[in-house]
Amino acid sequence: MYNIKDMTFDEDNKINLSDLPCQPDNITESKEEIQNRMEDNLKEINKYQDKLYAGKTEGVIILLQGMDAAGKDGLVSHVMGGINPQGVDVYSFKSPSAEELAHDYLWRIMPCIPERGKIAIFNRSYYEDVLVVKVHKLYLNQNLPARCLDDIFEARYKQINHFEKYLWENGIRIVKIFLHLSKDEQKKRLLSRINDESKNWKLSMADVKERGFWDDYQSAYQDAINATASHCAPWHIIPADKKPVARLIASEIILRTLKDIDPKYPKLSDDMRKEIKECENTLKSEK
Amino acid sequence: MYNIKDMTFDEDNKINLSDLPCQPDNITESKEEIQNRMEDNLKEINKYQDKLYAGKTEGVIILLQGMDAAGKDGLVSHVMGGINPQGVDVYSFKSPSAEELAHDYLWRIMPCIPERGKIAIFNRSYYEDVLVVKVHKLYLNQNLPARCLDDIFEARYKQINHFEKYLWENGIRIVKIFLHLSKDEQKKRLLSRINDESKNWKLSMADVKERGFWDDYQSAYQDAINATASHCAPWHIIPADKKPVARLIASEIILRTLKDIDPKYPKLSDDMRKEIKECENTLKSEK
Repeated sequence: MYNIKDMTFDEDNKINLSDLPCQPDNITESKEEIQNRMEDNLKEINKYQDKLYAGKTEGVIILLQGMDAAGKDGLVSHVMGGINPQGVDVYSFKSPSAEELAHDYLWRIMPCIPERGKIAIFNRSYYEDVLVVKVHKLYLNQNLPARCLDDIFEARYKQINHFEKYLWENGIRIVKIFLHLSKDEQKKRLLSRINDESKNWKLSMADVKERGFWDDYQSAYQDAINATASHCAPWHIIPADKKPVARLIASEIILRTLKDIDPKYPKLSDDMRKEIKECENTLKSEK
Repeated sequence: MYNIKDMTFDEDNKINLSDLPCQPDNITESKEEIQNRMEDNLKEINKYQDKLYAGKTEGVIILLQGMDAAGKDGLVSHVMGGINPQGVDVYSFKSPSAEELAHDYLWRIMPCIPERGKIAIFNRSYYEDVLVVKVHKLYLNQNLPARCLDDIFEARYKQINHFEKYLWENGIRIVKIFLHLSKDEQKKRLLSRINDESKNWKLSMADVKERGFWDDYQSAYQDAINATASHCAPWHIIPADKKPVARLIASEIILRTLKDIDPKYPKLSDDMRKEIKECENTLKSEK
């Protein structure tokens, strides 16, 4: 069986994306076994989430990145779909608006940082500002003052590290997941969007054109991951060519984080216990 | 005449607040001269602000801190009151709400970061999280996980430095102003709020109680200023016991920042020039 530790990277290990598998190794489990483990994990995630929501000491961000068709949307619905929606918010970060572009790049992110007790899912994120913005040199169109353009990506990697450390130090954990898809599998998935009418809406010529920049994106991802993998916000690189396995792995990474938080229902004070006793007596003595 | 340089502090100079004057030294100007200079400054600020708004390369935050009755509200209305309100937003940060307290402390600040081209005035700010929160140990009531409580203020000073550097590197300047009021002058001003009915609403018993923590506040301010004065976000410590002089000094600090930004109206491209020519011809040939 695969080991999640082998997919977890912090500042102590630098990666070369092309050395890492898009096909999961050593999967000996049957389809049913994978399905069963997934169901068990979802039940456990649900239990922990309920305690997290009650205890309110930490917030969690699950941050998903990956090429088009890597399985981000499916992961959101299959892994997080069963959780009480009161405790979970999903944010999809698309191309920024004119108003967003007139601001610093974390401006649109910050309102989505969860309060303690809640889980936020980021479908794409501020990492786009060191990915698509780097590949297409979009920062040149953003009317930034000259001092911001020197070593802009080196500066942004540092800013992101500081931001993630700030979140860690203020009670927010980030689970950063990169869905590592192969170029061949992307082609298959994009073609299937053409052949399946229910998926047509997900395809645009833009996606196909972006494929032309595949190597630039891989290189931008590799640089960003190496520069921002840290102890307080490690990167997880999940082989993404087999959807059910990718989702199972993601569920285990999320579960491991929740176990590590070890959320607890709030303890009642003696006064609160007394009040509850009084409530009970009042209710029982009602005529 | 005073020198603004003597009131500007970055990481190279540590301060001792009790050594710095609350009464401005060397003011030889008459009341009328001060008034005239103020009016000249406001006109100039207005001109620069118009260019800033048109050019949209940098945003400006004017961040005001000081004890109760130090003159923050008056500074906002007298120095910034004449500026085109389309380009200026004022944010007063009061006691945080329950929702704000459930989040990280920059969560309520970030939506107020100006877009490039605009000026935001912060009447109090995230510095309250290392001032009142420190003086009254409020962080102990905020249900933070244990890891956040070690050296919490040392950690926050660093977080604030990183945050202000992030803003600088993304086109936002911060002008940090501390209105340095004496304890005697505060007493006079609080008493005048009692004697003047139009000022009664500004006084509460809480203000008077906070006076009891005067030394703790001075010490928290001194620590915060020393830890967060930097080249990209220096602190300005303005003697605040004479309101007209404090406002004049503030106007000069703001003006100096705008001059340093050196905003310019956008240059028209040849195509845009052509279009304007066409507009002119169309308008003139109208019957």
